[in-house]
Amino acid sequence: MWGGRFASGPSAIMQEINASIGFDKRFYREDIAGSKAHASMLASVGVISKADCDAIHKGLDQVAGEIEAGKMVFDPALEDIHMHVESRLRELIGDAGARLHTGRSRNDQVATDFRLWTRGAIDALDGLFKGLLAALVDQAEKHADTVMPGFTHLQTAQPVTLGHHLMAYHEMLSRDRARLKDCRARVNESPLGAAALAGTSFPIDRHMTAKALGFDRPMANSLDAVSARDFALEFLSVLSISAVHLSRLADEIVLWASAAFRFLTLSDAYSTGSSIMPQKRNPDAAELIRAKVGRISGSMNGLMMVMKGLPLAYSKDMQEDKEPVFQAVDDFELCLAAMTGMIEDLKPNTDAMAAAAGQSFSTATDLADWLVRVLGLPFRDAHHVTGAVVKAAEQLGVDLENLPLEAMQTIEPRITSDVFDVLSVSASVSSRTSFGGTAPANVKKAVKAARKALK
Amino acid sequence: MWGGRFASGPSAIMQEINASIGFDKRFYREDIAGSKAHASMLASVGVISKADCDAIHKGLDQVAGEIEAGKMVFDPALEDIHMHVESRLRELIGDAGARLHTGRSRNDQVATDFRLWTRGAIDALDGLFKGLLAALVDQAEKHADTVMPGFTHLQTAQPVTLGHHLMAYHEMLSRDRARLKDCRARVNESPLGAAALAGTSFPIDRHMTAKALGFDRPMANSLDAVSARDFALEFLSVLSISAVHLSRLADEIVLWASAAFRFLTLSDAYSTGSSIMPQKRNPDAAELIRAKVGRISGSMNGLMMVMKGLPLAYSKDMQEDKEPVFQAVDDFELCLAAMTGMIEDLKPNTDAMAAAAGQSFSTATDLADWLVRVLGLPFRDAHHVTGAVVKAAEQLGVDLENLPLEAMQTIEPRITSDVFDVLSVSASVSSRTSFGGTAPANVKKAVKAARKALK
Amino acid sequence: MWGGRFASGPSAIMQEINASIGFDKRFYREDIAGSKAHASMLASVGVISKADCDAIHKGLDQVAGEIEAGKMVFDPALEDIHMHVESRLRELIGDAGARLHTGRSRNDQVATDFRLWTRGAIDALDGLFKGLLAALVDQAEKHADTVMPGFTHLQTAQPVTLGHHLMAYHEMLSRDRARLKDCRARVNESPLGAAALAGTSFPIDRHMTAKALGFDRPMANSLDAVSARDFALEFLSVLSISAVHLSRLADEIVLWASAAFRFLTLSDAYSTGSSIMPQKRNPDAAELIRAKVGRISGSMNGLMMVMKGLPLAYSKDMQEDKEPVFQAVDDFELCLAAMTGMIEDLKPNTDAMAAAAGQSFSTATDLADWLVRVLGLPFRDAHHVTGAVVKAAEQLGVDLENLPLEAMQTIEPRITSDVFDVLSVSASVSSRTSFGGTAPANVKKAVKAARKALK
Amino acid sequence: MWGGRFASGPSAIMQEINASIGFDKRFYREDIAGSKAHASMLASVGVISKADCDAIHKGLDQVAGEIEAGKMVFDPALEDIHMHVESRLRELIGDAGARLHTGRSRNDQVATDFRLWTRGAIDALDGLFKGLLAALVDQAEKHADTVMPGFTHLQTAQPVTLGHHLMAYHEMLSRDRARLKDCRARVNESPLGAAALAGTSFPIDRHMTAKALGFDRPMANSLDAVSARDFALEFLSVLSISAVHLSRLADEIVLWASAAFRFLTLSDAYSTGSSIMPQKRNPDAAELIRAKVGRISGSMNGLMMVMKGLPLAYSKDMQEDKEPVFQAVDDFELCLAAMTGMIEDLKPNTDAMAAAAGQSFSTATDLADWLVRVLGLPFRDAHHVTGAVVKAAEQLGVDLENLPLEAMQTIEPRITSDVFDVLSVSASVSSRTSFGGTAPANVKKAVKAARKALK
Repeated sequence: MWGGRFASGPSAIMQEINASIGFDKRFYREDIAGSKAHASMLASVGVISKADCDAIHKGLDQVAGEIEAGKMVFDPALEDIHMHVESRLRELIGDAGARLHTGRSRNDQVATDFRLWTRGAIDALDGLFKGLLAALVDQAEKHADTVMPGFTHLQTAQPVTLGHHLMAYHEMLSRDRARLKDCRARVNESPLGAAALAGTSFPIDRHMTAKALGFDRPMANSLDAVSARDFALEFLSVLSISAVHLSRLADEIVLWASAAFRFLTLSDAYSTGSSIMPQKRNPDAAELIRAKVGRISGSMNGLMMVMKGLPLAYSKDMQEDKEPVFQAVDDFELCLAAMTGMIEDLKPNTDAMAAAAGQSFSTATDLADWLVRVLGLPFRDAHHVTGAVVKAAEQLGVDLENLPLEAMQTIEPRITSDVFDVLSVSASVSSRTSFGGTAPANVKKAVKAARKALK
Repeated sequence: MWGGRFASGPSAIMQEINASIGFDKRFYREDIAGSKAHASMLASVGVISKADCDAIHKGLDQVAGEIEAGKMVFDPALEDIHMHVESRLRELIGDAGARLHTGRSRNDQVATDFRLWTRGAIDALDGLFKGLLAALVDQAEKHADTVMPGFTHLQTAQPVTLGHHLMAYHEMLSRDRARLKDCRARVNESPLGAAALAGTSFPIDRHMTAKALGFDRPMANSLDAVSARDFALEFLSVLSISAVHLSRLADEIVLWASAAFRFLTLSDAYSTGSSIMPQKRNPDAAELIRAKVGRISGSMNGLMMVMKGLPLAYSKDMQEDKEPVFQAVDDFELCLAAMTGMIEDLKPNTDAMAAAAGQSFSTATDLADWLVRVLGLPFRDAHHVTGAVVKAAEQLGVDLENLPLEAMQTIEPRITSDVFDVLSVSASVSSRTSFGGTAPANVKKAVKAARKALK
Repeated sequence: MWGGRFASGPSAIMQEINASIGFDKRFYREDIAGSKAHASMLASVGVISKADCDAIHKGLDQVAGEIEAGKMVFDPALEDIHMHVESRLRELIGDAGARLHTGRSRNDQVATDFRLWTRGAIDALDGLFKGLLAALVDQAEKHADTVMPGFTHLQTAQPVTLGHHLMAYHEMLSRDRARLKDCRARVNESPLGAAALAGTSFPIDRHMTAKALGFDRPMANSLDAVSARDFALEFLSVLSISAVHLSRLADEIVLWASAAFRFLTLSDAYSTGSSIMPQKRNPDAAELIRAKVGRISGSMNGLMMVMKGLPLAYSKDMQEDKEPVFQAVDDFELCLAAMTGMIEDLKPNTDAMAAAAGQSFSTATDLADWLVRVLGLPFRDAHHVTGAVVKAAEQLGVDLENLPLEAMQTIEPRITSDVFDVLSVSASVSSRTSFGGTAPANVKKAVKAARKALK
Repeated sequence: MWGGRFASGPSAIMQEINASIGFDKRFYREDIAGSKAHASMLASVGVISKADCDAIHKGLDQVAGEIEAGKMVFDPALEDIHMHVESRLRELIGDAGARLHTGRSRNDQVATDFRLWTRGAIDALDGLFKGLLAALVDQAEKHADTVMPGFTHLQTAQPVTLGHHLMAYHEMLSRDRARLKDCRARVNESPLGAAALAGTSFPIDRHMTAKALGFDRPMANSLDAVSARDFALEFLSVLSISAVHLSRLADEIVLWASAAFRFLTLSDAYSTGSSIMPQKRNPDAAELIRAKVGRISGSMNGLMMVMKGLPLAYSKDMQEDKEPVFQAVDDFELCLAAMTGMIEDLKPNTDAMAAAAGQSFSTATDLADWLVRVLGLPFRDAHHVTGAVVKAAEQLGVDLENLPLEAMQTIEPRITSDVFDVLSVSASVSSRTSFGGTAPANVKKAVKAARKALK
């Protein structure tokens, strides 16, 4: 495989650490597509004959068929998918197969395969993102008026609507999708024809192969083409950031499903039971989604460390680029799919949400705002008066809505009974009509806009 | 500060862990700009009077002046920059100052400050990137014809030109710059007016403040506006990926400056000496740039862990977002500046490079390609023949250029003396004219295109 | 500083990236202690005179005094703390000072300083650990009988005691302390006298300096002594692991302080309020402790990346070792101190805990165990019967304690009224007397053993 | 499986994300051993009959046999290895099998399996460490006198011996081994019998099962027993730190095998060739070892993020603990084995090493030391004089050994011809006899001590 200069073969342990066929066989489709494009181009510029090109295409189709039929025997001695495909091709068609590797190298070949595969993964993920976004939008519409407590520091802060809360995730995940799109543009450039590192003296046409494979353009520098893995690092970063978002939503599902919150009951489809405690209904899918960000971002960290300080051009270290990406994509796809299922399935306990939304003096800010708006108090003073009113209510063990007017007037005599108009939960959320605020009308507008964008 | 409900103050240790003024004072310009925009808007929609607005602007200008003059005393009891500015403002202008915090909260305020600061940092970095790219392009032009060995696995592979090698980094860093630009678009949205988490009932105009602060638009969901930190994660990812690129170039400088390579001599300006070995000329700047990727990517990892699994909306955990970003920006700016200086200063030892380029059978691929092109051998067979020729040359202790024709013919009788036309280093690099290949003509074209893009 | 071979000085940017005095001044005590030990040894083996040694000691004491009095002017041109101390010493005592650097180098000097500093940090942390462990043990004793729900998947699983729950953290943190002790043994070896990398031809006595500085022994290989930073990596790993433990406890405090749980009310000393919502009582300290693990483990990741692939011996990359460690120690100390304060201050709401402990069929396992023990059902069958009983109770809207016997007998006719003996929360926790189980008696025993170990 | 309370099963995607059998089947031996120990104990304390216990043992042996024979069909619907084993056991032996799960839970079961597996992995790794240490010691002995340049900043610093250099790695890896031993002590505690989280009311004997499984003791707190994963984090940290050490040695092998250094030629057994450049001899194994630290430390980072902020007790997030550990162990074992092979196979090019050792004024420190020792110059002055001498030699293009005495005397008139005694490489290394210094005699002593310790 390496020419005739090696007297003895690799040790067994060398073969084990060196072979990548165990995982890069996942590239077989991309490898064969790349070879077909390369062969067509070689024929087009006259480096190989039309007949050889036809034989190569036919042979490669047969190899593809054999792999798909599970007939290919993978052998670590043949190192990687490139050698497996080419070796089988030569068995099938002889010399013509041996001409295929003209004007290219495994260095540009693996970069081409990896970019094609990543582009495909991005496109598949985009579809899954759309599914999850649609699920969030549907639930947000259904719950545009459903009130719940909004938390900061996990303390009850102000009432919000569940629809608004879910639409916050719509925003985050939409940005993730945009990041993925930006990443795709950098992935989608063709290294093919960079050869080992320096380009080639054969009159190849890299624009032609780039176009045939759906790339936007050939990469402009051959050393860069075989050495760069920033496309993989960026891809892993995008997945990691989005996995953080999913972990936040997952954590909320775990909290809300707890006996303390009782904000929702998970369906049987997304719960598991216990081998010892028969009453349990565990939010396993949510917990696993919360956890997956660990491995996904660990994969990014790992590849970053691999690439740190590597001199140009290709080094074998870079073989460690694929498994983390495969792992991250598999995990992330699972997370998107499971989260979509859970969101579609979500049965909020609206009574518990409403009850919690009305507790803990959640409309105190509304009182402060009333003091500013109606009595003309500077906000800082209004904030102070409100603090005293909350304290009084706390001592009486009542909520603000039920605090006697006189108790308020003891603190600020100018308060009138009009104040009660702003102290209910529904008044509070309905009043938050500032752009992006939680008012149901806003949520409905946001849902409409999101639907349009998803089409 | 927190209204009148707290009977006793925080413990000393609480104050120490809680206060952010030690680092967020770095936001004072952004905080004041945000407050001015907010005040103007409040006046415009009639929430505060024109007179109050004028007093606030004047007062904030004075606060800015005091901070710039080093007269502000920073006090952990006032927690953060927002309270320092507002508190001093109220000392200066009284009630009007107390009206400023209407329709906003520290949650949207800190997000606004942080986004403004990050946008400024991105713009400053873009300038530094342009400087480094220009330095690379200048050196690439100067060394479009300078030959050196191209390495894979740090083994001599094929000759390349130094200009081509440097332009590979031009490509990587240009993508980093593009990533930074994409990131900027997501940073540049305004959270201001999201208030604590739910928006507000005051008739504020978030589009107006967004425009005044140069944001592209107000963020569309108030919960998202105060809870999201993906802009910071993306920014840190972009810096980390670029720091990996710089670490690779830095590693090459360290290698090339070694006695084994002698490819370049570092100038006094970018070397240090030894306290014990007077003959040393250490590439400290390059080593430090190689190392900085550690802390930069560590910052990203750290913030990712902070954000993992945080329920909405603002949690104090998120206060840990600023120091990693400050650290990363400071480090990365230093890296860009030092690398620019080193590249501008680069004195390659072209003799040593040329000598190394000609060793280790670096033109073996050219021989193989000749066998394909001239003798019509399939590449795989050509590769095999070349292996045997290299072995013969190795045994005779000569380079390919100096291997007698007969020795080659023993292996493949059809080889003619024409083969020597392709076995020299300069013939090799000149022949690599495929798009993106290392040929000097290609490098010059790439330089021209890069210059145009940098304008 | 580097001998007379440099024609021109470093560029400004070089000086900025290169100088470490901004952070390594923190080593001044260790640096001076190391120099005194080195001088005494040089005199003892006759390399310098007794008079020179005395002058050096006196001079170094003066330098120490000046630094402590804030009189030392730190100057980036002098790079680091070693040069600052030595340079000032030479100003003070002339030639004798110039003899101090015999038989050593900055490479072994900085490793010595760093190990001494780390050892000191470990000892200080051990004290803080003991404080936190004592606080946990005190509260565990106080709440050996306080019942609360035990959770798995944050679902109510079985009743436990608060004392038992707190003692779980005692176990985790005790292991962290043990790890710190193991780490200390590897930190506490002396690199001093390894010189630049190869040892020295002066007849120095490394055992003597090691002993004088409290090290267990001199390091056995000079290249290792100046190149190794695994002691710092291990230290950061230990801190990271312990920070994970603290983050778990902190998360529970955040949860328990929420309106949904109401398991505890945070004292004013460890809460903060809101600038806009006067009713808030935010668990900021707990949130910050939960978050700090990000930066601490980010520091570890960062240093790991720095050290990856560094050839021997000292490289300037290794200057990036100190700031992450300083940062991690400062953060972790703060976490330990703040957590200790919070635990000491903990006011559990035992009524809410008890109420929650009795809900959600928390004694279902006790029923299953009764079925095994009394009726002789195989556990798997008992588990199945219990599931049906829970379902019946759920449909009736009652807890197991209040489910009519007949309802149970419909499912399993052999159940008798004796079953009610095991269905109460207090019966449940008292019955868990297996070694390590939650029974109050067990907790009290564990507290006693922990107290003894802490002495 | 979860009792009778679930009306419908999990969705397909839930099953896919939830099932761990794909990887935890690797625990089958540990799971069966744990069940056997548990059954024997249950019989011993009278919870099950002797006959049931015998049936269970026999049944479990049969299950083990079936798994080893590849006859077990793994089914995601049965989730994990515990359910597979138990379910098959019940098929085989009926009711007795259904009694096995008394007084335990999958929570303590999986923790037990994982600790047993980790202990086994540690013991296997210890053997591999010994092999690598022995290989290093053998080569160090062989090359106790082989000189080579010692580098700092990759600049030639002072001559060292190859034996000394290799022994530096012996030191690092010995500390790694010690860390592994410390880790083992914390791994080797038994969670079995902690049951779900609270212990059990059955009169189980956890000391008995702990002893039967070779654990040092049962864990003292049931909540800790099922919630803690610090043993896995510590294990991954230890592997990560050691992987950093291997990456450094690997990087040196890559450097030394380069054409620029030519310090060694890799054997065929640990090289690979190129598909396009037949002259290549690539150090793939070394590069892969250098890279593997990425995934190993990425695994640690990932698991740390998983565990961050998890409330007690068991959460499903913790299922993400196993794959990273398996991955890290597999990778690290491969690294140790491949490095051992490479070290055993190492053929240093001693001529090239010696030549490089004599260049770059590598004995300048010896000159400085001579000036101190013989002329009594303070070291700082000697350093300055040496700098000037190096500059003179550089300008004449000669090494220090070949610089005319007069040239030296122009700089420092008191220098005599005796100085040449210390300017040769061999004089230099032989003079470094300080403890831990590079002198051949020291290396031989270190080898002897290491051999003794390895026995």
